[in-house]
Amino acid sequence: MEKGQFEKDIARLKTSQLTLSSSSEKVRNDALYKIYEALERNKDYIYAENGKDLRSAEGKISPSVLHRLKFDDSKLSSVRNGILDIIKLPDPVGRILEKRELDSGFVLTRKSFPIGVIGMIFEARPDALVQIVSLCLKSGNAVILKGGKEATCSNRALFNVIAAALDETPLSSAFLMLIESHEDVASILKMDKYIDLIIPRGSNSFVRYVMDNTRIPVLGHADGICSIYVDKSANLDLAVSVIVDSKVQYPAACNAVETVLVNEEIRDSFLPLLKNALDKEGVRIHASEDVSAIIDCIPAMEDDFHREYLSLDIAIRCVKDVMEAVEHINTHGSHHTDAVIAEDEVVKDIFFSLVDSADVFSNCSTRFADGFRFGLGAEVGISTSKIHARGPVGLSGLMSYKWLLEGNGEIVRDYASGEKEFHHKDLI
Amino acid sequence: MEKGQFEKDIARLKTSQLTLSSSSEKVRNDALYKIYEALERNKDYIYAENGKDLRSAEGKISPSVLHRLKFDDSKLSSVRNGILDIIKLPDPVGRILEKRELDSGFVLTRKSFPIGVIGMIFEARPDALVQIVSLCLKSGNAVILKGGKEATCSNRALFNVIAAALDETPLSSAFLMLIESHEDVASILKMDKYIDLIIPRGSNSFVRYVMDNTRIPVLGHADGICSIYVDKSANLDLAVSVIVDSKVQYPAACNAVETVLVNEEIRDSFLPLLKNALDKEGVRIHASEDVSAIIDCIPAMEDDFHREYLSLDIAIRCVKDVMEAVEHINTHGSHHTDAVIAEDEVVKDIFFSLVDSADVFSNCSTRFADGFRFGLGAEVGISTSKIHARGPVGLSGLMSYKWLLEGNGEIVRDYASGEKEFHHKDLI
Repeated sequence: MEKGQFEKDIARLKTSQLTLSSSSEKVRNDALYKIYEALERNKDYIYAENGKDLRSAEGKISPSVLHRLKFDDSKLSSVRNGILDIIKLPDPVGRILEKRELDSGFVLTRKSFPIGVIGMIFEARPDALVQIVSLCLKSGNAVILKGGKEATCSNRALFNVIAAALDETPLSSAFLMLIESHEDVASILKMDKYIDLIIPRGSNSFVRYVMDNTRIPVLGHADGICSIYVDKSANLDLAVSVIVDSKVQYPAACNAVETVLVNEEIRDSFLPLLKNALDKEGVRIHASEDVSAIIDCIPAMEDDFHREYLSLDIAIRCVKDVMEAVEHINTHGSHHTDAVIAEDEVVKDIFFSLVDSADVFSNCSTRFADGFRFGLGAEVGISTSKIHARGPVGLSGLMSYKWLLEGNGEIVRDYASGEKEFHHKDLI
Repeated sequence: MEKGQFEKDIARLKTSQLTLSSSSEKVRNDALYKIYEALERNKDYIYAENGKDLRSAEGKISPSVLHRLKFDDSKLSSVRNGILDIIKLPDPVGRILEKRELDSGFVLTRKSFPIGVIGMIFEARPDALVQIVSLCLKSGNAVILKGGKEATCSNRALFNVIAAALDETPLSSAFLMLIESHEDVASILKMDKYIDLIIPRGSNSFVRYVMDNTRIPVLGHADGICSIYVDKSANLDLAVSVIVDSKVQYPAACNAVETVLVNEEIRDSFLPLLKNALDKEGVRIHASEDVSAIIDCIPAMEDDFHREYLSLDIAIRCVKDVMEAVEHINTHGSHHTDAVIAEDEVVKDIFFSLVDSADVFSNCSTRFADGFRFGLGAEVGISTSKIHARGPVGLSGLMSYKWLLEGNGEIVRDYASGEKEFHHKDLI
């Protein structure tokens, strides 16, 4: 595609988005239902295209990645149920967030509106494409889709089926665009005039590349270096169980624990218990000398405390108290998810108020940091930024707002001169 | 100051901020009151230092800029009253925004926390320094202050007075930093590791320079190209009065109108009325041929419809209908503040839903786009971004949040295996 044409296509998304955002909830929900039906009707075509991807990928990617790439009856049923769930969610568009009478009959309303055009870059999981389109359609956002290259045929098939279904609705498919090449990704990162938000998922290095190469706001996280601090007031069995779950339940997740900080007063009693449990799960312990004095382990380099292993490895060190744990976490962590294991309420309070992370937990697994587990209805991504949205982000992360002011000829001069006065009465 | 030291000082702000953010409302309000008292006690020193700035600036800056630079009894009284108002505002820190039981006794809370370290770059107005410090202190944010260079002595004096007052409180002044040079501004723009948000005020070119040279999120707006569309259903006298106020009441403001779009069906009746009123105020009309066929005016270049005049100049063109007005505004405007003058409710609805701007008004002056007039209690800035905060931004724009999850040993494995189930019960 010629570059000039590509930019025009992106610009056109912005126009289509305004039509989409002013459509009624019923029109958007009906369109979601059309997609729900079309996926079932066209499943053989989708499975056949997915089969091409699977055959090309075989032997080149790990079994777990291959499993994510596969789109079968169970995945179809799950994304279709996901669409029904999204239809049921309350309409996020046009919600009245504030309403205030500035003066008699002069009313200001802050109303939710979609952000606009969103660039979504996601891993080689065909079900993600369906989920992202559904969330953007529900929330009135146009979307540029770029999936993992291993899923090229599957994504193209799903996109075609969805676009054809939408073209039979009043909305049409004009608010959707599928891009496939790295050059197109590089191009959209420059289009801050037309694109309002980029949500990149995938490897840390990729997310960092996106963050470093665009002026468009980015919602996401590069690293997930999560820590657990075990206080001297901890229930030790609970601590072991939570650490094992946080590491082992899905080690490749961004919310898996990477570092354990142990209060030095309990190291003699706690470390052997922890080692015993981690050994059973095949977890390799990298630790500093204060730990290796008590249990066998791999000597840790300083670098081990800045690492996101994403594997069955864990770094352990001792700390003097909760303050030293907080300082370690704020310095070495990635402001994602950190937990304290403690019975002492004061220690928990200090940890909650001073750890500067999106998610701060006590006495439970770090793996709970997730939009579905949090009950957000759907997860758009996890953000480590403090701006706009932090932590697991639901549908509300795709929304902005406008200030609407309805007057009857009011002019500022009358208020500046003192002839009239604001009374600022909240109406909701 | 050596570069390494400067970076260490900035890093230290981050640590101080965590202490500040965990302080009680009473401690922060008491500190605000100490500043309130200290300003009165040290007014002679402040006036004397301000006098130095005034003498250096005289003849070099316009009378209106000189007026803003002056810090006298009336300005002092106004900033001190501003502090009392800020003390009275509800505490923005630690507010419970969501609370949900994920499972029995397993409670998730979304709580407001300050954003962190904020870089505030503002115009040569000494009262702005006091206001910014007060807002940041109330909201628990550390702040790096950089004021306009014409106010160097005044800012230093105010900073010294405020810092000395704070050093007598438990908070100390460690969360404040004053910088003065352009080199320091360039340095802080690179410190995305320590600084969470930049709020630049000042000339368009300066704000654009900041936006183009940092990875730190920026809250602000470069241009304020505001438009008013006069529909054929408009009350013409009301339209004239609103346009005159929007242009003349303070032409240098970002929310002053720059472009008027007139429905072509009323051009014969409306344009002479408008010209007559604008002539009386000395406003120069730049217009396209469809307008100059009716009234005398300066021929407009295409560029006139992209310009923020900030002066007694206005661009006028005719449009076919509200849709053409919307398209003009979305293409040529700056997504700041735009208004429609119409009695027809359908036209107003179309304008409200399709104009992609932070503030969309009907039948009133664009000059109402302002945090105080909106009743936000205080204004931090006006944002044309759709991310985080849009339009006039109050204290809430300085806030982020954390997700706090309090457990009793819950692990994800039990929920993944189906042994336990989330019940997601909203508690507020």
